[in-house]
Amino acid sequence: MGEQLKVAIQGEEGSFSHQAALGLLGNDVKIVPRQSFETLFEAAASGAADRAVVPIENSLHGSIHENYDRLKSGNLHIVGETQLRISHCLIGRPGSSLASIRRVASHAVALSQCRKFFADRPNVESVVAYDTAGSVKDLLRGDGPATNGAIASKLAAELYGGKVLLEGIEDDPQNFTRFLLLAREPQAAEKASKTSVVFTLKNVPGALHRALAVFALRGVDLAKIESRPLRGRPWEYAFYLDYLGDPLGPAGEALLDLRSLSEELRVLGSYPEGLKPRVS
Amino acid sequence: MGEQLKVAIQGEEGSFSHQAALGLLGNDVKIVPRQSFETLFEAAASGAADRAVVPIENSLHGSIHENYDRLKSGNLHIVGETQLRISHCLIGRPGSSLASIRRVASHAVALSQCRKFFADRPNVESVVAYDTAGSVKDLLRGDGPATNGAIASKLAAELYGGKVLLEGIEDDPQNFTRFLLLAREPQAAEKASKTSVVFTLKNVPGALHRALAVFALRGVDLAKIESRPLRGRPWEYAFYLDYLGDPLGPAGEALLDLRSLSEELRVLGSYPEGLKPRVS
Repeated sequence: MGEQLKVAIQGEEGSFSHQAALGLLGNDVKIVPRQSFETLFEAAASGAADRAVVPIENSLHGSIHENYDRLKSGNLHIVGETQLRISHCLIGRPGSSLASIRRVASHAVALSQCRKFFADRPNVESVVAYDTAGSVKDLLRGDGPATNGAIASKLAAELYGGKVLLEGIEDDPQNFTRFLLLAREPQAAEKASKTSVVFTLKNVPGALHRALAVFALRGVDLAKIESRPLRGRPWEYAFYLDYLGDPLGPAGEALLDLRSLSEELRVLGSYPEGLKPRVS
Repeated sequence: MGEQLKVAIQGEEGSFSHQAALGLLGNDVKIVPRQSFETLFEAAASGAADRAVVPIENSLHGSIHENYDRLKSGNLHIVGETQLRISHCLIGRPGSSLASIRRVASHAVALSQCRKFFADRPNVESVVAYDTAGSVKDLLRGDGPATNGAIASKLAAELYGGKVLLEGIEDDPQNFTRFLLLAREPQAAEKASKTSVVFTLKNVPGALHRALAVFALRGVDLAKIESRPLRGRPWEYAFYLDYLGDPLGPAGEALLDLRSLSEELRVLGSYPEGLKPRVS
């Protein structure tokens, strides 16, 4: 048995990032919590952690551009990915019951994803907190505001000793977040089946069409494309592209051609494609 | 003078949406505040408001997919757009001074965009509130938690009688939100220079490349492209595309061709392209 792998996450233990880290790396890891995305990237870059788990897009809220920016400007490599269904639980103190719940704390985004729960219960009040898992921690320690419930992941209930009173209270079950696993060293190409790149093109009509030809001609499948205006360079765009296939095969040849067509191109990483969760 | 145009926004008066509405329609409008995006769309669809102003993407946080979903499934048309620089002010009560500020309330997202402000002032505490402009309203009315400062737009300070103690306290000045103006009737094609569509393609390699050919062959410029996995249909994608040009010219012909190549296609609206704000 070696030393435990240190994995940095943003937020408290028990967060969805924590859950994603366990899904990617198993339970035998040491979680290194960081308050912000900035300090999360720093933890992995400096060696304070061996890996970082970073949310990159959500099915309701879209891509998290600020984390793309950190990937683009930093030196970390994507070495894995996973998707997590964001399912919220109503959590109380041990021994409590649903009927006794009056004031429920959570992060503003989580509260806004559970509108029906509150609409159905006019006598239950929502209280905004700094973190989902943190609201459970505060509830159990009696640290936070005077609440008797919290909304967070099941993992948070388990970690802090809360009682799950209701599961799946989110309005929209189609709420998924994609997390990336980052490391200082790239993944071995033999294990990779998906590649993420960011590139810029001169903004002339047809430029993107020509760039995508390098994939179309070789039958290489795209998994994501997104344009984003470039800072301080109006009318120029960066493109985020994920494509599938062995980086040592036709997909790798397509990349060489794309590089020659691009003004700038950066490979963010090649990695094994994660499973997509399904909702029936 | 006719009756004032009623414009629905999400959030309180004094929000960035309110500011966007004034930028799009001038000051002689009646603001109809709505608590959620859902009720915002409803207000315009039902006739409770003549227009709705909806945030659709942010330069740091990406596209707001849930609002794309509402555009796709509803009957409203995009008739205009604008981009707003999100600049946060520290706001106190009249007569207060910067040195006296100890507890500052705002929405969690606004607080997270002003980390440097708090990092530089270890004796100033942040307090999470339900809304940026709402935190100013509460501060001035003494309704909210015991705070003596709030973070919100300059407009919120003006509206509620607060004193701007500091301007531009956001960490990243490159923080822009793009807002769409929605109406029940489409914009006259003569005034339009930009069109937003959403379409789906069979997921076969090269499908997107072929679809973009309809624009490339006619020299029609793209302004945005984004793929998004389709709910409940793994491996199939919807594409959000904005293109430039007169809908009655070559851009309109390209649209006819794109429609024949797509499984489904919906025109979200043709409208005058908004100016892009620049940061020096």
